[in-house]
Amino acid sequence: MSDSPQRSSSQARNIKLVVAYDGTRYHGWQRQADGVLTVQGCMEAAAGRILGHPVNIAGAGRTDAGVHATGQVANLHTSNLSIPTLNFRRALNSALPADIAAVSAEEAPPAFHASGSAVAKTYRYRICRRPLKSVMQASHVYHFWPELDAGRMAAAGARLLGEHDFRGFAFAAERRKNSVRTITGCQVSEPDEELHVAVTGDGFLYKMVRNIVGTLIEIGRGRWRPDRIDEILQSRDRGLAGPTAPASGLCLVHVEYPPW
Amino acid sequence: MSDSPQRSSSQARNIKLVVAYDGTRYHGWQRQADGVLTVQGCMEAAAGRILGHPVNIAGAGRTDAGVHATGQVANLHTSNLSIPTLNFRRALNSALPADIAAVSAEEAPPAFHASGSAVAKTYRYRICRRPLKSVMQASHVYHFWPELDAGRMAAAGARLLGEHDFRGFAFAAERRKNSVRTITGCQVSEPDEELHVAVTGDGFLYKMVRNIVGTLIEIGRGRWRPDRIDEILQSRDRGLAGPTAPASGLCLVHVEYPPW
Repeated sequence: MSDSPQRSSSQARNIKLVVAYDGTRYHGWQRQADGVLTVQGCMEAAAGRILGHPVNIAGAGRTDAGVHATGQVANLHTSNLSIPTLNFRRALNSALPADIAAVSAEEAPPAFHASGSAVAKTYRYRICRRPLKSVMQASHVYHFWPELDAGRMAAAGARLLGEHDFRGFAFAAERRKNSVRTITGCQVSEPDEELHVAVTGDGFLYKMVRNIVGTLIEIGRGRWRPDRIDEILQSRDRGLAGPTAPASGLCLVHVEYPPW
Repeated sequence: MSDSPQRSSSQARNIKLVVAYDGTRYHGWQRQADGVLTVQGCMEAAAGRILGHPVNIAGAGRTDAGVHATGQVANLHTSNLSIPTLNFRRALNSALPADIAAVSAEEAPPAFHASGSAVAKTYRYRICRRPLKSVMQASHVYHFWPELDAGRMAAAGARLLGEHDFRGFAFAAERRKNSVRTITGCQVSEPDEELHVAVTGDGFLYKMVRNIVGTLIEIGRGRWRPDRIDEILQSRDRGLAGPTAPASGLCLVHVEYPPW
């Protein structure tokens, strides 16, 4: 490695972090040019100060600007960490801004990669239906007042399950060749005066969850029938899907990995 | 007034609004130069669009940048409102950004003035004590982990009650001649894993509540004794009080008026 006595005295370690953040202030997870505030950029800077060397922190999901996380997963490699992971997590939380937190830190096997090893991700979308908008939640929900039929939305969501080509739900200019993904869960629930859509899948195209939610809203308010989902999947035509739901309602809540 | 048929067909009305906002994005309540985002500026613009004439909206409390409100009170005069106040409130909420809401609107007597008629205001300060910082609450609390003795803070707070010269708790450069105010309530409570300080008074000097809270924190953590409050009141020396607590924890929760 190098002639640094600290590095040579400790082994290379792969640290898995579960990360929560309020995405409101950030231009998304992914590091960008200098001067653009991103969650990855802030975390790499904070970890770098603690570890004393440049750090690359890989994240499981590239959340967009304004999108939140309670269960983002990231990992970093270091040979410069001689303290227990709990102490590292505490140091990291002190060094991070108040709207980013490391919820947990543990040592992972050398081959673990937050993105490459993930088998499933779950996003939750919050629609707030309170008659008076909740100003303190403005950046964490989508306020939507017209009637929504949750049963109809759940029926539509069930039609997304399985392996499909989701190009019709992707960002129009998406250029990835492979747009086939497998959705294993799409639950609609109504806690308090909110309506939540939780979508689990092995991967998501750019803006796919927000386009799914925007489509479910059109179905829930009665403009389209649930089988519109089949048409969008079969035609792969983005023009048939609903508008992109606002970023504020979206949160990455869980990333699933195989047991070590 | 003018030859507008709308104006001449309706009487001048004085509308009292209770207003809630998340102050995070705003440079405080008070209107400033063009291009500076303020709550008052946003509200005057929204109301002006609805009423069709320039509107001056007076607020009870000049909350600072980053300070929130659930019970700010404001009033406006108009001769151009022929719809019920409930409909006006709904129109206003549609025109306002998601982080500002009119909670209620009602017609007040002609002489009512949100600031001049107020007899008491209550601010609540939220200190969050959860071991893991709550990222989604980052802009609504002050995360403070060292031990705090709530009983000691309450004992100190009781020493603020009554009429005093509060110059020692004011912003150092405060230039108002009259710094005598009456504090009628100072409650310390511990809901969930938070510690709240609620302060009620007939008026507050600039940064006075945040300086009181910063002082109570120093007392609560054991650095000073509760009778430090008496010293600060007697000396009127800002140098003896604690640091200004961050804006994020502060919220204007209630403004009291005499019955009409």
